[in-house]
Amino acid sequence: MEKLHTEQHLKSSAFISDIVIGMSDGLTVPFALAAGLSAAVSSNKVIITAGIAEIIAGCIAMGLGGYLAGKTEQEHYESELKREYLEIETMPDKERDEVKEIFSAYGLDQQAQDLIVSQLSKNKDHWVEFMMKFELGLEKPDINRARNSALTIGLSYCVGGMLPLSAYFFTSRPVDGLTVSAILTTICLFIFGFFKSKVTGQPPIKGAFKVTIIGVIAACAAFLIARLVS
Amino acid sequence: MEKLHTEQHLKSSAFISDIVIGMSDGLTVPFALAAGLSAAVSSNKVIITAGIAEIIAGCIAMGLGGYLAGKTEQEHYESELKREYLEIETMPDKERDEVKEIFSAYGLDQQAQDLIVSQLSKNKDHWVEFMMKFELGLEKPDINRARNSALTIGLSYCVGGMLPLSAYFFTSRPVDGLTVSAILTTICLFIFGFFKSKVTGQPPIKGAFKVTIIGVIAACAAFLIARLVS
Repeated sequence: MEKLHTEQHLKSSAFISDIVIGMSDGLTVPFALAAGLSAAVSSNKVIITAGIAEIIAGCIAMGLGGYLAGKTEQEHYESELKREYLEIETMPDKERDEVKEIFSAYGLDQQAQDLIVSQLSKNKDHWVEFMMKFELGLEKPDINRARNSALTIGLSYCVGGMLPLSAYFFTSRPVDGLTVSAILTTICLFIFGFFKSKVTGQPPIKGAFKVTIIGVIAACAAFLIARLVS
Repeated sequence: MEKLHTEQHLKSSAFISDIVIGMSDGLTVPFALAAGLSAAVSSNKVIITAGIAEIIAGCIAMGLGGYLAGKTEQEHYESELKREYLEIETMPDKERDEVKEIFSAYGLDQQAQDLIVSQLSKNKDHWVEFMMKFELGLEKPDINRARNSALTIGLSYCVGGMLPLSAYFFTSRPVDGLTVSAILTTICLFIFGFFKSKVTGQPPIKGAFKVTIIGVIAACAAFLIARLVS
């Protein structure tokens, strides 16, 4: 039981989950874009150019966007931390009441609440750390993690996006490119969905179908609408 | 001080943050894709077709992907909830130790730990709820929220994406479309970045520049690479 417990609570590493995030969108959007264009243009070159432009744009939006979001989260944490220290200094009674409220919600009585507050308030760092986590739900963000995460997501998006696009490099007509791309990407989406579900602890076959279906629906919709437009 | 405290801890509503997520990518990626294609093709029609295909694909990937991710989160929560109830039944001592560990990390002594555990374990629902939140960091997800959120993000992506693309509807050459699109989108990114920072409690001017710069870098990169490729 102990082993089961540990294994099943196990979170997949942050690195793997970043690869999953990037590759998930990377396999879907450029695949669907290329499928859509296949319905509308007569040259693979346009599809390849559009695909590469999209991959670059998506990669920068996810990567740089993720990095700046990470920095903002860091700044937010720092400013809330300062505020909590200030509040403990300037209105300790209000903060004591907030601690009590947290525990009264779980059915702890007055005596237990008072004991917790008196011990917690002995050490300011513990007290602030407690309020950050239990009142505000904030954990100290790791700034290196934000940067690495942004990089991993961006690169995974590129790798994921080049897969469906590669079919158009080795074929000469959009219809052939689309056929190869659809077969290749459907297989990749299924395999990817399988492993994604494995690492996130979901039923793998069901997860594989979910991921594949999203990609296929996106590609079909893009194809149909592009045909309507053009 | 109280007012300040409330205001600044205030989280923007989930609805607004979903609009921000969708529009943020929507303004950036289709803008950059269209810019990239402007460097490579001679007709606005191809750019419009590619842009619409991308918006549809992105919208489905974000919307449907978000919905299914929400359902998965729900299932994950339910299965962990079941496990916690089971663990409290089958190995209550281990679970009691886990509660104690949480509080010993904040400097609470043995007496306080024992008191908390004895009171918390009187009510199984409270106990499980406590373990879910403070051991596993899981909050009960709202499945309607997942569906609404996916819809809002997807639609915001569409609206955001149609803005940069609209410039190509009213011009006849890609270079003119790009000029109008770049001016229009830069203004929109700035305004959007300003309000985004306002609702997330960040410095608005700094935030507006960040958002604008990501969009402009993505568009420039897509433009340069598309020119190289074609």
